[in-house]
Amino acid sequence: MELSNEAMTRVDHRKLRRYLVASFEKFGVPKSDAEIAADALVMADLRGVDTHGVIRFSPNAWYVKWLSEGSMKAKPDIKIIRETASSALLDGDRGIGMVIGHRAMELAIQKAKESGVAMVGVRNSRHFGMSANYAMQALPHDMIGIAMTNASRQVVPTFGREARFGTNPMCFAVPVDKELPFVLDMATTTAAAGKLELAARLGKAVPPGWALDQQAEQTTDPRTAQSARRLLPLGGSREGGSHKGYGLAILVEILCGVLTGTLTALNADQDPRGHFFGAIRIDSFRPAGEFKQDMDRLIRELKSTPPIAGQERVYVAGEIEFETLQERAEHGIPLHSSVLKGLREVSEKFSVPYDLE
Amino acid sequence: MELSNEAMTRVDHRKLRRYLVASFEKFGVPKSDAEIAADALVMADLRGVDTHGVIRFSPNAWYVKWLSEGSMKAKPDIKIIRETASSALLDGDRGIGMVIGHRAMELAIQKAKESGVAMVGVRNSRHFGMSANYAMQALPHDMIGIAMTNASRQVVPTFGREARFGTNPMCFAVPVDKELPFVLDMATTTAAAGKLELAARLGKAVPPGWALDQQAEQTTDPRTAQSARRLLPLGGSREGGSHKGYGLAILVEILCGVLTGTLTALNADQDPRGHFFGAIRIDSFRPAGEFKQDMDRLIRELKSTPPIAGQERVYVAGEIEFETLQERAEHGIPLHSSVLKGLREVSEKFSVPYDLE
Repeated sequence: MELSNEAMTRVDHRKLRRYLVASFEKFGVPKSDAEIAADALVMADLRGVDTHGVIRFSPNAWYVKWLSEGSMKAKPDIKIIRETASSALLDGDRGIGMVIGHRAMELAIQKAKESGVAMVGVRNSRHFGMSANYAMQALPHDMIGIAMTNASRQVVPTFGREARFGTNPMCFAVPVDKELPFVLDMATTTAAAGKLELAARLGKAVPPGWALDQQAEQTTDPRTAQSARRLLPLGGSREGGSHKGYGLAILVEILCGVLTGTLTALNADQDPRGHFFGAIRIDSFRPAGEFKQDMDRLIRELKSTPPIAGQERVYVAGEIEFETLQERAEHGIPLHSSVLKGLREVSEKFSVPYDLE
Repeated sequence: MELSNEAMTRVDHRKLRRYLVASFEKFGVPKSDAEIAADALVMADLRGVDTHGVIRFSPNAWYVKWLSEGSMKAKPDIKIIRETASSALLDGDRGIGMVIGHRAMELAIQKAKESGVAMVGVRNSRHFGMSANYAMQALPHDMIGIAMTNASRQVVPTFGREARFGTNPMCFAVPVDKELPFVLDMATTTAAAGKLELAARLGKAVPPGWALDQQAEQTTDPRTAQSARRLLPLGGSREGGSHKGYGLAILVEILCGVLTGTLTALNADQDPRGHFFGAIRIDSFRPAGEFKQDMDRLIRELKSTPPIAGQERVYVAGEIEFETLQERAEHGIPLHSSVLKGLREVSEKFSVPYDLE
């Protein structure tokens, strides 16, 4: 399910990054933070997670709107509130979620180096974009990375008529030897909200099990689903196991919200957000070399599974995104004309030099 | 979906425990370990997780068979292979999984007390029964408990024809103030293998999305599904999100298998098993009292969700099991005549005094 190529322009990712860094700096973001935020958006687009990339960088979209309004701080005072040898709670001071997430994961990695494993909770943050950005920070350190965030209310509990929590994604990144890293980045709903957005643009029906309408009946119309804001947890129905998706979403809310004091499930507003990060140093358990060789063996075993009729191959989590990354790094990121328009408008409104087209 | 009450006898849980302790001791298990193993089986039956209770305690079922053969050691030498301030790898020496799991979780709790959070991996273990037993050990310590195990190959990857990994359950237990604790204990398949077993006994069809047959086509016949051993990951199909259930199952295999060196996904045998445990001390992040009050608020918010037509209430993970526990602790555990027969046969074969009927 992809948008037609006709309205697409390929943009070099380095150019896009330079433009974003300059834009963030215009909003008063310090250079090193501007680079972190720009990298996060570009990496989402490179990996094909387009809903968390520069589609959110137009005058009325999340990041630009919040920064220009001042509701997301360009120079937050990110503070450690509480810490132990293997844990910390950070206050993000409502800064840029991508920067706060990056710093929090750095702290988790540092603590895991010293202590074996570590977990870092974050309160008072804002939307942090693609979870995989933070979990993948662990990979070069031979660590398993974990990243989660709570989100605005738009998911119903199993048997429930009304939304009570968010799509609450969780991501796990695991280092390998020669294969592509295992990166599982998943909303705890059947489908991420962005998939509805895409279906709505294309005018395509979505499968049953994705969403309810305003009357809490199953719907396959993506626009109805978007306005009803009643997504279904992974599993879709009780007999399909949706109590599990629901349970995982609440686990994410507990780790990101209750443990940090930033519960979005009890708040009709979508902000602030809480996050949760973890780092597991492989050699706390086993020599990293042995571990990574066994990861390769596991991945090859999975990929060697004969496919069912009508399918060509069996994938491993993260594989498609890495293939997309390779292709887009080489040939440019395909941006829809509406997305480029948004970027151009930011350039005009905030006087950022623009050279993307 | 319950078995008819006609063939059921209510057995007092204390009596059942005494019988099991005496039986484990007959196999040479030290008293303190026999009590841990008996408690694990009785707790599964008390909570209504009957597939992980004394149904497995007949001469040809798992635990009795393995103990009497000696393939599961009555007196294992459980050793710490590697440790840091916040982590450890244990070797279970192929002892009783329930005892190894209990000891590993004790170690995780001890390390979390000292260091903030902790994770413990286990290699060379055997089937450890109900995951919730270990995660729930954390609750009285005001900690979040995590327990996972890998399992024998009987689940297909998304798009795959053949099984490559197990039902790989994960459990998370979270303390509360006045509400019932949040306990999410889930196989990463649409339905646990035990649900197929139950449907087969009742002669009832299972929903699509649970399992494939020998030809890797969807089946709703539980006996066909049982013999094909091709369960589907949570989500059931690609458009239902089964790549997420598949990814979670592999995450469990990575933590329990690759990190410990006991990979079941690469092994057609079902043993040994690897496990993974975690303990998160709440007050590493927030005062435990505040956390538990917010847990109560979250749980009440979820339970207050108006139900969809045809449903009476919205549940929270673990609620049904706690209600079952209360009822069965008071009125006895309903055991099917076939289960009692198995227990009686153990008594006769191994000369254990029997007073359950």
